[in-house]
Amino acid sequence: MSGNTFGKLFTVTTFGESHGEALGATIDGCPPGLELCEEDLQRDLDRRRPGSSRHTTQRKEADRVRILSGVFEGRTTGTPIGLLIENTDQRSKDYSRIKDQFRPAHADYTYHHKYGRRDYRGGGRSSARETAMRVAAGAVAKKYLAARGVSVRGYMSRLGPFEMAFKSWDAVEQNAFFSPDAERVPELEAFMDQLRRDQDSVGAEVTVVAEGVPVGLGEPVFDRLDADIAHALMGINAVKGVEIGAGFAAVCQRGSEHRDEMTPEDGFLSNHAGGVLGGISSGQPIVARLALKPTSSITTPGRSVNVHGEAVEVVTRGRHDPCVGIRATPIAEAMVALALMDHWLRQRGQNGEFSG
Amino acid sequence: MSGNTFGKLFTVTTFGESHGEALGATIDGCPPGLELCEEDLQRDLDRRRPGSSRHTTQRKEADRVRILSGVFEGRTTGTPIGLLIENTDQRSKDYSRIKDQFRPAHADYTYHHKYGRRDYRGGGRSSARETAMRVAAGAVAKKYLAARGVSVRGYMSRLGPFEMAFKSWDAVEQNAFFSPDAERVPELEAFMDQLRRDQDSVGAEVTVVAEGVPVGLGEPVFDRLDADIAHALMGINAVKGVEIGAGFAAVCQRGSEHRDEMTPEDGFLSNHAGGVLGGISSGQPIVARLALKPTSSITTPGRSVNVHGEAVEVVTRGRHDPCVGIRATPIAEAMVALALMDHWLRQRGQNGEFSG
Amino acid sequence: MSGNTFGKLFTVTTFGESHGEALGATIDGCPPGLELCEEDLQRDLDRRRPGSSRHTTQRKEADRVRILSGVFEGRTTGTPIGLLIENTDQRSKDYSRIKDQFRPAHADYTYHHKYGRRDYRGGGRSSARETAMRVAAGAVAKKYLAARGVSVRGYMSRLGPFEMAFKSWDAVEQNAFFSPDAERVPELEAFMDQLRRDQDSVGAEVTVVAEGVPVGLGEPVFDRLDADIAHALMGINAVKGVEIGAGFAAVCQRGSEHRDEMTPEDGFLSNHAGGVLGGISSGQPIVARLALKPTSSITTPGRSVNVHGEAVEVVTRGRHDPCVGIRATPIAEAMVALALMDHWLRQRGQNGEFSG
Amino acid sequence: MSGNTFGKLFTVTTFGESHGEALGATIDGCPPGLELCEEDLQRDLDRRRPGSSRHTTQRKEADRVRILSGVFEGRTTGTPIGLLIENTDQRSKDYSRIKDQFRPAHADYTYHHKYGRRDYRGGGRSSARETAMRVAAGAVAKKYLAARGVSVRGYMSRLGPFEMAFKSWDAVEQNAFFSPDAERVPELEAFMDQLRRDQDSVGAEVTVVAEGVPVGLGEPVFDRLDADIAHALMGINAVKGVEIGAGFAAVCQRGSEHRDEMTPEDGFLSNHAGGVLGGISSGQPIVARLALKPTSSITTPGRSVNVHGEAVEVVTRGRHDPCVGIRATPIAEAMVALALMDHWLRQRGQNGEFSG
Repeated sequence: MSGNTFGKLFTVTTFGESHGEALGATIDGCPPGLELCEEDLQRDLDRRRPGSSRHTTQRKEADRVRILSGVFEGRTTGTPIGLLIENTDQRSKDYSRIKDQFRPAHADYTYHHKYGRRDYRGGGRSSARETAMRVAAGAVAKKYLAARGVSVRGYMSRLGPFEMAFKSWDAVEQNAFFSPDAERVPELEAFMDQLRRDQDSVGAEVTVVAEGVPVGLGEPVFDRLDADIAHALMGINAVKGVEIGAGFAAVCQRGSEHRDEMTPEDGFLSNHAGGVLGGISSGQPIVARLALKPTSSITTPGRSVNVHGEAVEVVTRGRHDPCVGIRATPIAEAMVALALMDHWLRQRGQNGEFSG
Repeated sequence: MSGNTFGKLFTVTTFGESHGEALGATIDGCPPGLELCEEDLQRDLDRRRPGSSRHTTQRKEADRVRILSGVFEGRTTGTPIGLLIENTDQRSKDYSRIKDQFRPAHADYTYHHKYGRRDYRGGGRSSARETAMRVAAGAVAKKYLAARGVSVRGYMSRLGPFEMAFKSWDAVEQNAFFSPDAERVPELEAFMDQLRRDQDSVGAEVTVVAEGVPVGLGEPVFDRLDADIAHALMGINAVKGVEIGAGFAAVCQRGSEHRDEMTPEDGFLSNHAGGVLGGISSGQPIVARLALKPTSSITTPGRSVNVHGEAVEVVTRGRHDPCVGIRATPIAEAMVALALMDHWLRQRGQNGEFSG
Repeated sequence: MSGNTFGKLFTVTTFGESHGEALGATIDGCPPGLELCEEDLQRDLDRRRPGSSRHTTQRKEADRVRILSGVFEGRTTGTPIGLLIENTDQRSKDYSRIKDQFRPAHADYTYHHKYGRRDYRGGGRSSARETAMRVAAGAVAKKYLAARGVSVRGYMSRLGPFEMAFKSWDAVEQNAFFSPDAERVPELEAFMDQLRRDQDSVGAEVTVVAEGVPVGLGEPVFDRLDADIAHALMGINAVKGVEIGAGFAAVCQRGSEHRDEMTPEDGFLSNHAGGVLGGISSGQPIVARLALKPTSSITTPGRSVNVHGEAVEVVTRGRHDPCVGIRATPIAEAMVALALMDHWLRQRGQNGEFSG
Repeated sequence: MSGNTFGKLFTVTTFGESHGEALGATIDGCPPGLELCEEDLQRDLDRRRPGSSRHTTQRKEADRVRILSGVFEGRTTGTPIGLLIENTDQRSKDYSRIKDQFRPAHADYTYHHKYGRRDYRGGGRSSARETAMRVAAGAVAKKYLAARGVSVRGYMSRLGPFEMAFKSWDAVEQNAFFSPDAERVPELEAFMDQLRRDQDSVGAEVTVVAEGVPVGLGEPVFDRLDADIAHALMGINAVKGVEIGAGFAAVCQRGSEHRDEMTPEDGFLSNHAGGVLGGISSGQPIVARLALKPTSSITTPGRSVNVHGEAVEVVTRGRHDPCVGIRATPIAEAMVALALMDHWLRQRGQNGEFSG
């Protein structure tokens, strides 16, 4: 329990279900004096918002966030920041058919058995809608870090069979896929259109890069920075894998290849470590990748059981993303920013202010 | 800070450096009444112990663990269990040469900058020697879980370029590599011997499987079971990637392929989810994989800098594992067991005893 | 930081300022299946509500609480419960005069120095208005405990020089003072009226009694039940002392007098321990007392300084309670209920369900 | 569970039973660079040590503490500090008679019912012997704070019916009672001698004063500095009450009397607040008082029951303190120091370094 709080010093506690009255978050531990307004949060919320392209769910949510406390005369006061988004476009009738069914690859089955009951409307708490609050809270962390020279940015590095090389950060913001290569977008669109015709979905990979992170963030031995980033990213809906730096490719590397050598002139000569050594940031860019599974909600019928143990054929209608990975980029950025922010305060608490 | 404690309800707090006086752990929250003796812990410690084959470091440590509290008349009392292993074979002179150097891909650089000082002897707190206490604590969790029908076992699934198919759990315990396929062992030995002649090291992949886990472990939304397993595994020295179930392969999967369908007769028909749905255990085997980077300590010279910012050529002599992945299997098992144990108690706290 | 969360397993995280937009709370870890509606929370909120008698602040707040999540079809689901109260009667102009002053015995001085800025309107986060959310959250705990035979009730045991003997729980709810002796009420009213004429305020003592608590709640050694109750009660605004059982009277007691003897027929023969032995509940009623200081906001001028270090004469106008202790009874009950609830889940997590 | 850890950032986790093999503690989060040796800890341990006067238990324990990690070349490294004291003078045979009895006012009854079993030798984990580790850990906090101008000192302010006015800190260290008035010592000695002849025990009150604490320590709203001090002190064995500043005397005070006025020249003109306003340190001395009950272990027979529910007459022989309050002063100092230290790091983490 208490699983709905992230962080130790910069803590984010969220509540809310897909079709409940509202989503909320409380940020505790934000340093005082940070300039903050609702627009700062709205920007990232809009990047994550459903219905913004034909490749994502057609649910229309304004996702207008309100700051209810912790900000006075335009600056944070050091007391908790309360955030609220009222749900407006819940079509609960879409879901009533499946209230007794366990949709394959959904949390229906596990919530039902864990709690003995569940809010089946739109997946309840297990819906990706919950991530809106992560994005809002992450925007606070991003703003604090940005003022200290740290940027946290992500892009979609793979969409099913398509691998996208990094071209530029500008490209990322100019297409609905967060592709870092604008030229690949028509290809992705054609693929997604075919996928919809196939009544199917596909997985994706997102890469997050944090630049400007000072050396020294992360704690031995369990709360390493990379361990906490892994916790942050694997905790996002649909994520099945996390890599730092070379990741699984390190299995085939030799020590003479993997180790990042240094010279006085150039510092580190490579970054297989992904910016973390011994669980502590090295000052190099932090590079994390996450694998997202294909959306489970598809209209191709699937075999399952219902709460009575009977066989059922499940067809998920509703409004769903054919690739959850498409909207995952701002969420992944938010989670990395929250992990960095928490370690920033932890580092300062134990070791005092650092120059970075 | 407080980064040296793992878990929320079943907590393990460790201390100790590679060449300090001793390693220790305190387990808090262990249920009372569990039969426990030092031999229960020693078994896994011996599996992890250095010097047990020519393919691992030649440091000789008895690694005899003492239980100092929390057990009375052969059973746990519910109060904290204190564990201690005295260090016996510290050859600190091996390391004095490099006290001012930052060995490439080591934590030397980050510890120095984070704390302003470091115990350079054998890597101090950043040494893999620290994991002995994780193994000891994990053995307590394993014993508790075993009595409830849960097994947590691991094997080496890849060693550099070699991929090992799972043959049997019996095979795993009969070779120094924890290979699940005994027939591959001569190949691995030849490879390791060549690697030593090359003065190099290599990465590895370990797979952990937990069977018998009841449905219902894991909390929405941040402390999902898979997120906590990712935290646990990425927190092990040298780990650069973690996967659950299909892992990164899910990126290329379609929804119709990835989703694990169910029938009343056979239950789940596949396990791409790796035993976790919506962050909560589904009752299927939990399957986690971790990627370990090649050992950084090799005798091939590498470019680096020292604490004065001057160029140095580093050759790490000492006694080191040419593949840290070889001894990682018991450590990975321990960390998964600790994560499961913690969630077992959390589930019981919030939801009462479950049948499982 | 993270100081705005109470509890480890049944956690309550609050936000909100006296004159901000709203007050909110998130309850995480509530067991599923508990029948819960807004009326359950409103009852205790109404007992705490300002403006309900002439002896308390004349601020008029409807204090209508909304449940935004975590309850579905009338029962808790096990996911976080979001609570919200919108502020409606903020007269911020009342306070602008004193924005640069440090009112004596207020948190103005310490918030200013800690955070470098503060929301001065009505005391901001340091206002007793914040306790509304504690009462709302406490009502959830009370309801859960009540269903298991545990009652948590309080009364005012002293008002300045007046000591009230316990007569009946019925009496407590029938007067604005929560006096357990109805006959003393006219005396208290006369005293309060005089106090208002004197432009002064006075302290009070509240006693909380929890009956039906099973043996076994509380953890060695730091998180004893009594230590956590002390933390809970000393954390209420204006509290300067906490006692359990005999409290400070134990200083003069002899061991032969203090120790609560037992017989097979009658169980414990006395309750000097106040229901806690070795930090763990004994099954006897838990008895806690708290001392509340006199309200600092009085209209008698007082010497102080302002943010520029200059001498000022402070007269606090606004709308204030002449005795904060009067409305403290429901708050103290709520905090004891929260501490018990948290330990209930902790006990169950470690030791399994108990009979009680 | 996890009740054996104190603090959030500067955490102390302890283990050990009265008659087990050893007592241990792990301090996590200590800033690096603090000069520290075993003698620093030993000084306070010797002040708490049993057998140092005829008025305390005659158990002889060397109580030699070893630092096992976290200190290198005479300074802390920022990694966890492991502490160990081996038990040497356990006379377990003294206790075997009472293994099935519940001694009145002891934790025997509650441990038995909570855990279903207990280490009955000398009270096991519930013994005051456990506090040795608090003193050792507190000494680390004291040393850190002392280097920043903060002193944490205590004295016995009442012994049963005797009230001791504060005369000087020098006096405190020159008598076995920690009396701040040397002239009262003969009186106390005579009283204690008579008490022993009466086969009885008595309560005591200890006062702790922390001077030099900067303004700004403490968090709204639950983790106020005074709330955490109350938690720290009420968590000491035998404590039944805690006061800050005016404490229970505030009940009878008027607002015009209680409020500590300020002038630019003299700052605060009084200290009824005890150094805490709104849960945050004000820069004035922090004054806390704790009430300790009389020792339960007396040789006057008492009525009780055994584990079989049968009536028994209990006479506690063994070696016990006739007034646990006598040795409580160093323990109370340690706990206040730990609470201050934790909030020091929390303040620095959220708000950056402060001038104090």
